[in-house]
Amino acid sequence: MSLDKLTKIYTPAIESELKNAVARINGPGLGELHDMMRYHLGWIGEGAGAKARGKRIRPLIVLLTTASAGGDWERALPASAGIELVHNFSLIHDDIEDNSPLRRGRPTLWKKWGVPQAVNAGDAMFSLAHLALQPMETTSPTVNTLQAGRVLQQACLTLTQGQYLDIAYEDREDLSIEDYWPMVSGKTAALLAACTELGALVAEAAPATREAYSNFGRHLGLAFQALDDILGIWGESEHIGKSTASDLVEGKKSLPVLFALKQGGIFAKRWHQGPIELEEVPILAAQLEAEGARSYTINEASRLTDLALASLDEANPGGDAGDALTTLAKQLLRREE
Amino acid sequence: MSLDKLTKIYTPAIESELKNAVARINGPGLGELHDMMRYHLGWIGEGAGAKARGKRIRPLIVLLTTASAGGDWERALPASAGIELVHNFSLIHDDIEDNSPLRRGRPTLWKKWGVPQAVNAGDAMFSLAHLALQPMETTSPTVNTLQAGRVLQQACLTLTQGQYLDIAYEDREDLSIEDYWPMVSGKTAALLAACTELGALVAEAAPATREAYSNFGRHLGLAFQALDDILGIWGESEHIGKSTASDLVEGKKSLPVLFALKQGGIFAKRWHQGPIELEEVPILAAQLEAEGARSYTINEASRLTDLALASLDEANPGGDAGDALTTLAKQLLRREE
Repeated sequence: MSLDKLTKIYTPAIESELKNAVARINGPGLGELHDMMRYHLGWIGEGAGAKARGKRIRPLIVLLTTASAGGDWERALPASAGIELVHNFSLIHDDIEDNSPLRRGRPTLWKKWGVPQAVNAGDAMFSLAHLALQPMETTSPTVNTLQAGRVLQQACLTLTQGQYLDIAYEDREDLSIEDYWPMVSGKTAALLAACTELGALVAEAAPATREAYSNFGRHLGLAFQALDDILGIWGESEHIGKSTASDLVEGKKSLPVLFALKQGGIFAKRWHQGPIELEEVPILAAQLEAEGARSYTINEASRLTDLALASLDEANPGGDAGDALTTLAKQLLRREE
Repeated sequence: MSLDKLTKIYTPAIESELKNAVARINGPGLGELHDMMRYHLGWIGEGAGAKARGKRIRPLIVLLTTASAGGDWERALPASAGIELVHNFSLIHDDIEDNSPLRRGRPTLWKKWGVPQAVNAGDAMFSLAHLALQPMETTSPTVNTLQAGRVLQQACLTLTQGQYLDIAYEDREDLSIEDYWPMVSGKTAALLAACTELGALVAEAAPATREAYSNFGRHLGLAFQALDDILGIWGESEHIGKSTASDLVEGKKSLPVLFALKQGGIFAKRWHQGPIELEEVPILAAQLEAEGARSYTINEASRLTDLALASLDEANPGGDAGDALTTLAKQLLRREE
């Protein structure tokens, strides 16, 4: 079965599991809080639907990993919901921290309900994420359920560490390329590593296999972020659903930018003079490329993609799900055959 | 041994356990994030010390409960740290939500580091709270460690539900006394119920005993909140460390206020006319009392205190710790003999 076919089977099950997890919010007067969860997850309100829900890539990876490792994907539904709720809680808070008015084309939670309720709604979703693992207790060994909780909790901590660095970097002018990876490891790679590790854990895979899957997820996240940084400056934005505003205008300290700042050339001089205007983007993107930032980042993305695919190979994913997981990884990493 | 003596033994162990939990934040560039945790917990920065740490009442209750139920209090240290970190994470976010510049006499985290870093620091502490339970794995049965995690996670969800109601109530003029209890159950009682339930769980107490301890904690929280509402209007503020500003000036929808609003008398009329000034507080506090709001709230606090002490009695706490727990409850509930 292809990735598409498995996605069509898994997706309704993921949505159903998420709905059950969120239904833990109930009680007198709590309808609006429940609605805030449902709005953010794309189920209700103006613009509700596939685009508002996002791609649910992470829960899909959890389920595909479990099946690839020889397990029953349905047993991985609680973990997949936990991961997606962590991802979405972090988006609610990121939008507050970044002062972003829009998310997936709709007003963000803080924009609709105000900052106090949005901070608290993120906390509620964070709590729901951990509780979402509870149904594992009836289908997995107790020690694995406990271990799954720890994997999710550690991923949350690593995520907040990456977010700390991301915010702290905004005010720093002395960053080097070495500062990039700890931030990206937290912001992007930790949760993807948790996806594949949880998937393998639910399948009760051997420790070496679990480690290979975990490495696959982490490298996938790192490679994906490097590619995302390339697209954020040199385009093809429709492929990953990014806003059309360039990362350069936002002042994002992405890998190509950090590479060029280290060179201390024409781009670096302009960067240090203050915010970049939209009109300057084409010429500055060309300048960045001329200084070698694009080819450097492409090489890094390629190196990490190779590591990701080698780890996946080592994990030896099986069956239709294994093929689908490989296809998905290559799609995300733009290595389609 | 008296409550004082046990407090002196337990307190350094609690601080040490908290420090170990917070030390999970380490890695390149994360020193400041670690410092944010340490500042909020009262260990570093201007004004660090006993007052800045707060009373650590919750972890103390966890340890006293475990010992009262015949368990080894040291095995409850991870749970006590988890509870205290949940409490403190919620304070970090509450201060953002309430726009409070001061906490325990010092600048709040958002005031010192800005809202984005403070939201994220709260999330980091939330993550640390769950991870703090991990050392239980070596001293408690796996199933109990898993159960302890669920108790903590459910308490977090209930806490956010209470906080949702508290924020939502700010804009509502149609509240009745019935709206009070769901809010207070979440904001104050859920975490205290989790303290005593976790303490009994670590002691591996029988289900009926666990339930009695849990009921004790919940009623303790409800009674404490009703008493706190009385003190917030009619004084003796030094006893509970509240700010000297009256709850009336803050427009807090406390139990006495909700009682008077229901009466629809002179106080209710004045309340609906707009914010109350500091100069009006004495006469409005007297008016509230004349309308029966004080005696109503005292009766409610007394009823809940009786329920708390009856539940504690049912739990049958033993030994010096049992006596100390009873003393602590009576101190908190102002029932000193």
